[in-house]
Amino acid sequence: MAARAGAWTTFEARMQEVEDLSDVLSVIGWDEQVMCPPSGRAARGQQTATLATLVHERVVDPAYGEAIAELSANGEDLDDAQRAMVHLARHHRDRAVRVPGDLVRALAEQGARCNVVWEQARRDRDFSAWLPELEPMLRLKTQQAEALADGGDLYDALLEGFEPGMTVAQLDPLLAGLRAELVPFVQAIFERPAPDASFLVGPYDRDAQRVFTERVVRDFGFDFDAGRQDVSTHPFCGGPGLGDVRLTTRYYDSLEPGALFSSMHEAGHGLYEQGLPARFARTTVARAPSLGLHESQSRFWENVIGRSHAFWARYLPAAKETFGGALATVDLDTFVRGVNKVERTPIRVDADEATYNLHVLVRYELEREMLSGAVAVRDLPEAWNARYTDYLGYTPKHDSEGCMQDVHWSWGELGYFSTYTLGNLYAAAIAERMAGDLDIDAHVAAGEFGPILGWLRERIHDRGSLTRGRELMEEVTGRPLGHEAYMAYMRGKYGALYGVE
Amino acid sequence: MAARAGAWTTFEARMQEVEDLSDVLSVIGWDEQVMCPPSGRAARGQQTATLATLVHERVVDPAYGEAIAELSANGEDLDDAQRAMVHLARHHRDRAVRVPGDLVRALAEQGARCNVVWEQARRDRDFSAWLPELEPMLRLKTQQAEALADGGDLYDALLEGFEPGMTVAQLDPLLAGLRAELVPFVQAIFERPAPDASFLVGPYDRDAQRVFTERVVRDFGFDFDAGRQDVSTHPFCGGPGLGDVRLTTRYYDSLEPGALFSSMHEAGHGLYEQGLPARFARTTVARAPSLGLHESQSRFWENVIGRSHAFWARYLPAAKETFGGALATVDLDTFVRGVNKVERTPIRVDADEATYNLHVLVRYELEREMLSGAVAVRDLPEAWNARYTDYLGYTPKHDSEGCMQDVHWSWGELGYFSTYTLGNLYAAAIAERMAGDLDIDAHVAAGEFGPILGWLRERIHDRGSLTRGRELMEEVTGRPLGHEAYMAYMRGKYGALYGVE
Repeated sequence: MAARAGAWTTFEARMQEVEDLSDVLSVIGWDEQVMCPPSGRAARGQQTATLATLVHERVVDPAYGEAIAELSANGEDLDDAQRAMVHLARHHRDRAVRVPGDLVRALAEQGARCNVVWEQARRDRDFSAWLPELEPMLRLKTQQAEALADGGDLYDALLEGFEPGMTVAQLDPLLAGLRAELVPFVQAIFERPAPDASFLVGPYDRDAQRVFTERVVRDFGFDFDAGRQDVSTHPFCGGPGLGDVRLTTRYYDSLEPGALFSSMHEAGHGLYEQGLPARFARTTVARAPSLGLHESQSRFWENVIGRSHAFWARYLPAAKETFGGALATVDLDTFVRGVNKVERTPIRVDADEATYNLHVLVRYELEREMLSGAVAVRDLPEAWNARYTDYLGYTPKHDSEGCMQDVHWSWGELGYFSTYTLGNLYAAAIAERMAGDLDIDAHVAAGEFGPILGWLRERIHDRGSLTRGRELMEEVTGRPLGHEAYMAYMRGKYGALYGVE
Repeated sequence: MAARAGAWTTFEARMQEVEDLSDVLSVIGWDEQVMCPPSGRAARGQQTATLATLVHERVVDPAYGEAIAELSANGEDLDDAQRAMVHLARHHRDRAVRVPGDLVRALAEQGARCNVVWEQARRDRDFSAWLPELEPMLRLKTQQAEALADGGDLYDALLEGFEPGMTVAQLDPLLAGLRAELVPFVQAIFERPAPDASFLVGPYDRDAQRVFTERVVRDFGFDFDAGRQDVSTHPFCGGPGLGDVRLTTRYYDSLEPGALFSSMHEAGHGLYEQGLPARFARTTVARAPSLGLHESQSRFWENVIGRSHAFWARYLPAAKETFGGALATVDLDTFVRGVNKVERTPIRVDADEATYNLHVLVRYELEREMLSGAVAVRDLPEAWNARYTDYLGYTPKHDSEGCMQDVHWSWGELGYFSTYTLGNLYAAAIAERMAGDLDIDAHVAAGEFGPILGWLRERIHDRGSLTRGRELMEEVTGRPLGHEAYMAYMRGKYGALYGVE
């Protein structure tokens, strides 16, 4: 039986409205991080909370639910894309109706407040200043997770919002398997002589970094007529997407950590956003289906491409010309070893490819323990430092290089970090499959990124959310999710760089 | 009888919501002009239209109307500020309910579309490219005016949204009186030898202009922790206000037209916004009561202060130090005559203080004729050029220095230009009254802007919309609205500069 006349019209109008308003939230969120003057932050928190609450209200409106139910039950007349739109809207709405509007507002307001306090507390290295705002945030997140979980696992309930279909039951063995191989592998690297990376310290001229970085990002295929790059404390990719993608980066005097690899990373996200199916603009399918998949794109461009021997075979001469100084006498092999140096370091965003997943693991475990009540928020510094000592062999010197380093928890983003590791696993599996179709190194060494981007566009970006993330990845990579491709990639790359096996 | 319990709670919550969402519209409107990449403009138009339509829906919601009616009828328990909030919300809502939601959306969508086309058409000097988007915009504005006017004058209906209480019946004699004095006065100036202003051409280093301009604006009292200054094609003051005020300017090689006086002008608006009563944030009274009053502040800082002999007595040495070059040998009197040069020019935003109101008069008359149907949109170039020839003695060479020069009509801002002249009249009356309390020139020459800003803050900015604009102006200036203070100011200033009477 065909759906009742008018159900599609009702559905489509509301879906477009919700998508438009979500895009507005993206714009003002970007603005808050990049443009908003200090004295405007508090009011911005109110504005965001009001709009977020209103979007929630529009989503849970029974009329929208009835149209979705009608189209779900009697959707024979719909095409595949329309069915996917309805399916995604239903998934989103089913979750939204479990969360009271007051809680939506409270989360948004507390996020804005907690973020402002965190920024100062992090500068002051003062966990006790952050604690009074983080505790209520965790209480609110726990309430939200309980409302969403409906008796199930709290972490699963939050993760579902970022990585639909993924659960702790799948993650735990996956991460345990990864950890079992990765920890001794990293240990073996630590036992090798550390490469020389002193040339990365600089100082490198910041404006020259900007120019060089923009060139690389443009070469990758990022369209500056459909996007921009600005500066923020924490690099991110924001904006509404499609024709308006906003990268941010940050400039230090050093090349690494620095703007260059951050920009490549965010450009990976941005290329995905610019490649989403424009023919489905203002619908639920013109979005990435999962954060893990999104992160696979950023890690692919940053690490698989940007830290490769082939890339620097092409770009090191240009970098030398741009920067001169300490770089002038560095040869290609030394440079590549330097930008792939593996270290015991405290900061996740500056971590190398090999230790990165251990940083994530600490967060994954602590989030689960905070949600279950096994770790109290006030005990976070101690629990954090113990786990860093254990997994990374590094004990943070203060909380700003410890449990206060990330922006996520202040905004209430729990259940999110594990998607970073999924992104790493996906990126390696994608690269493995792409290598069957393309000579990646040859294209990169020739500065031809078009075939690489085209491959990703056709198989991933242009698919939007027409297929669920997990199924799309299995289709693209031709294998079930696992850590094998990632470890093979790591052994290949770091084996060559460090002489480990 | 006291208002029904709960009416205030209902009213306040909805008012705050509407104010928050209006602030979001301000942020994304600023972003569209300053940050949005070209390919993002079309989607931004949709996003803005969706949010504007939603705000309209929240305003016209009967529950809000009932709370307003209850509080209007039985508001004895309210304090004066609360009564003013209710009164303003009622005024706003009474107008909103006359305009169908579909028309609100159509106006927003057409505004975004027309603006994009206008930008290109203006670059191409091609009125015929703009016409197909301007015609439907005028039709929509006429529909809106008819809905608002309810049988009354169409121009009045639009003007009421910008300058509440002002009508054509008051404006016509006011502007006629002004014109009768101003045209021969300007004519007398034209008959005098033109001052040397060649030193203004430059080239002046653009970054040095930025530094100097930011210094001046900061000296005026603009708080950069509660605001910012960026670049846009058309300078404006945007953002949500209070703690987040966004000035824009634009840099040319010349000093005039250039960034400096544009920045002073927008800073005048910005100082007003930063001085609005923060204790009434998120209410209808934390806004300026009229655009004319807003413009009075920008004209005051730009012209009364920024183009004064006293100002340059203090700042010319610093300007010489900053810019050097052509400026090094210019003496104070020459400089002040130069930045007050009166000319027959085609562009309103670059016009001098003496001819400016004649530019406005052309627009005021043409808007009324377009709304009445006396002038068709397609005949606009001819009508425009005829009137410029008549009033200003200048015939535009092409439509980009003619009827396509302003951004307003593309956005549907009709009934707006006349408030610019009201701003000039108000500014002169304010200065006249202020001179009774303060030695303005002495303070300016000493670089002490605090007492001047303090005077404006106390009497105007901090009053928000507690009092209607017209009554507030009469209270501040101690006289009814007229052109006398303005002409006295002009005769005093330009008499001295040009030797006219």
